[in-house]
Amino acid sequence: MQKKHDFLASSIEKNSDDSQGFITRDTPPVDPSLARQEFVPPEEEAEYAHPADMANHMENLSLPEQVSLLRHLPPSEAADTLAELDEDLAVDVLEHLAPDEAAAIISEMSPDDAADVLDELEEDHRDTLLNTLTREDAEELRRLLAFDPDTAGGIMNTEIVMLERDITVDDAIRQIRHDMEDKEIPYYAYVVDDADRLVGVLSLRDLMLSKPGTILRDALHNQDVIAVRYDMDRKEVANRMSHYNFMAMPVVDYEGRLLGVATYDDILDVMQDEASADMLGMVGAGQDESVDTPWKDSVRMRLPWLMVNMLTSALSAFVVYLFEGSIAEMALLAVLMPMVANQAGNTGQQALAVMIRQLATERFDQKKAWTAVLREGKIGLVTGLFMAAAACCGVYLFSGVLSLGLVMGLALLGDMLLGALAGGTIPLLFRIVGRDPAQASSIFLTAITDSAGFFIFLGLATAFLL
Amino acid sequence: MQKKHDFLASSIEKNSDDSQGFITRDTPPVDPSLARQEFVPPEEEAEYAHPADMANHMENLSLPEQVSLLRHLPPSEAADTLAELDEDLAVDVLEHLAPDEAAAIISEMSPDDAADVLDELEEDHRDTLLNTLTREDAEELRRLLAFDPDTAGGIMNTEIVMLERDITVDDAIRQIRHDMEDKEIPYYAYVVDDADRLVGVLSLRDLMLSKPGTILRDALHNQDVIAVRYDMDRKEVANRMSHYNFMAMPVVDYEGRLLGVATYDDILDVMQDEASADMLGMVGAGQDESVDTPWKDSVRMRLPWLMVNMLTSALSAFVVYLFEGSIAEMALLAVLMPMVANQAGNTGQQALAVMIRQLATERFDQKKAWTAVLREGKIGLVTGLFMAAAACCGVYLFSGVLSLGLVMGLALLGDMLLGALAGGTIPLLFRIVGRDPAQASSIFLTAITDSAGFFIFLGLATAFLL
Repeated sequence: MQKKHDFLASSIEKNSDDSQGFITRDTPPVDPSLARQEFVPPEEEAEYAHPADMANHMENLSLPEQVSLLRHLPPSEAADTLAELDEDLAVDVLEHLAPDEAAAIISEMSPDDAADVLDELEEDHRDTLLNTLTREDAEELRRLLAFDPDTAGGIMNTEIVMLERDITVDDAIRQIRHDMEDKEIPYYAYVVDDADRLVGVLSLRDLMLSKPGTILRDALHNQDVIAVRYDMDRKEVANRMSHYNFMAMPVVDYEGRLLGVATYDDILDVMQDEASADMLGMVGAGQDESVDTPWKDSVRMRLPWLMVNMLTSALSAFVVYLFEGSIAEMALLAVLMPMVANQAGNTGQQALAVMIRQLATERFDQKKAWTAVLREGKIGLVTGLFMAAAACCGVYLFSGVLSLGLVMGLALLGDMLLGALAGGTIPLLFRIVGRDPAQASSIFLTAITDSAGFFIFLGLATAFLL
Repeated sequence: MQKKHDFLASSIEKNSDDSQGFITRDTPPVDPSLARQEFVPPEEEAEYAHPADMANHMENLSLPEQVSLLRHLPPSEAADTLAELDEDLAVDVLEHLAPDEAAAIISEMSPDDAADVLDELEEDHRDTLLNTLTREDAEELRRLLAFDPDTAGGIMNTEIVMLERDITVDDAIRQIRHDMEDKEIPYYAYVVDDADRLVGVLSLRDLMLSKPGTILRDALHNQDVIAVRYDMDRKEVANRMSHYNFMAMPVVDYEGRLLGVATYDDILDVMQDEASADMLGMVGAGQDESVDTPWKDSVRMRLPWLMVNMLTSALSAFVVYLFEGSIAEMALLAVLMPMVANQAGNTGQQALAVMIRQLATERFDQKKAWTAVLREGKIGLVTGLFMAAAACCGVYLFSGVLSLGLVMGLALLGDMLLGALAGGTIPLLFRIVGRDPAQASSIFLTAITDSAGFFIFLGLATAFLL
């Protein structure tokens, strides 16, 4: 596998709008006429030489134009661009290239990026491409494809510098200089024993600042390395790397043998995705939905949860049905009851959001979690008192019936407190039963706040007013 | 300012639970008895030598213990630990150290981290500390403090390698080797002209792979550098860095002069924070709330939006009030109407979440945005048809009144479609008027779906059933 393009160093782009010669990158310099050409000469595409921008540009082209573009780029640039493309798009384009064309591009990609793309293809197509690659490349990729894509093994890069622990720092530096041409991360080297077990990490800086002649084993100063096992969930990997501010996290197997490293660029994507997943999942949308998702897929992802929501609101409707008589007697109750449910639902969602993000961003701490539920309870109680007082006054002024105002206030207070506690607790309960803490949590929350709210309000009203 | 601890290279920790010598880091090896001691000898704290873990450990101590611990750590380790602490905690601890103790620690911190902490102090205390530092350090920090903390200037690091463009690669490497001891990012060097304007970026690898004797100016190959201005919002900086997979993004002024670099570790934090802010803001919670926020502050942050929610639900209640007579005639309407509002609200929230995350994670594209609203409309229509059919059947079976079922179905369809369109549009409208697209968006959405839902349902029922 060839080296990955060194993104930080060069960006061969012409000046756009800034007279100082800097690309401020507010708008990509797209020439609309390029989009309409079927055959796009590579020289003009050099305007978008940074792979990420090239990929953006490609998204605006038609499929034939995209394929044509990829064909005309040098394989290493095509590889970099393919790695930056949206997955669905990358698959489409690959399917329209001849196997040898596709294989030429894939062999230039970093193994982790290549594995990501190959993973999305149909099995037959994937096998065809793998068989077109060199045996060495194909073996490496098959090894990577064996890992669950949502784990450390699934995101790791295998092109790393491995050093024997009994060599000198001078030899190590020589080896790194030699490997520098091919490896993606030439500045960190992983020291292993003769069984390939990871024993330490040294940076090029550490090596260059050490006394010449020092044996690596000694240069490690008895360090214990922070590493993750290949089956760790990638969300957790992202949290660990973020916690330690690591640029690369070594991935090991259960024997401690070094398999690869997860790099910071992978976790940037993971973090964005997981943050979106929480928010989307909370309301029952597809957790990896975006505005690029085909609308039919979105329908398929959301419909089940909308069904569940329908059933839970039927449950709340049943509670109202139990008090149908009271409503027939005093229709004003129907005017007020949705306010109780709405307010408590919003209160609960606030608690829910805080707890979900807490579970997502920090290592789980049992004591801290339940303290947090208590905190939400306090907040629900105090805000509930405020709102109850306001509602009581409002209802009294509007209806002239003080007891109705008190019933409203009491119901609001009770439901808001319940909502806050439920909002804080639901993610924890989901976690205990092994579910995603966010998924459809809002739907279950409103099931509680609606049913309880109607029950408390109509119950109190029936008991004390009718 | 002294060098920042090189996190990736070493972690001086004793073996904990893994016989292979690896820290699997499932649970930090906390000795509970340590927490109760007032004076904590630094040798025992060496168990948590990685600053991020040391900071975690400190959070479990009392304030006197925290202060004592910081006092007994070597200043550079204390600096690293302080940089990892939660901001409020860091401020508390600093306030309890003597100015010279605090200044000793701050002078060891990376300028960007020091500025972050100083920014949170009371002005008097900050000035005292700045005056205790060396003039050079104090000037550098005052310069950084002048920037808005939410911008590129506010997160950037000023300890960078700057190279004149007319020197050779050999001299450049020599300079980097010399700077390596102090600089945080020794592997990337920024090439400037004689007015300190940024003209290019070279990596140590680029330099080492170049022919000896090459002038830097030529080694740059006419590249145009991707940089950001100091006043760019840090969210946007994070998106750019993530888009290009940059480890460091140069920050320049309006003349193109290099001021510093924003590094990937800063944006990891920014991305986590911004993702949480979207989710929390959507439901009206404080956008930087967490389970560590004092409950009184949470009350203060959430109450205004709860008030707004109360007012909007009063609006919906008023719509119901207009149809009080219809409800008095047919109380069953009150049983069914919350189902319409609930379902449409959830549908709308799904669209809302997708749009909010779209605006947060990608560069804004007008055409793409409105296409997305259309997509949500399609989804709302199709899911609405499914739900309407189900509801119609359900209501008919339950009540025996077909026209009621049809009214229910129609109202559900209409409100769900409206909810989907509103959910997709609200963030865009907020953006147009300069508001945060997420803030309290759910509250305004339910204002629409509740009012409209009640109006459509009760209106249709009144017109066709009563």
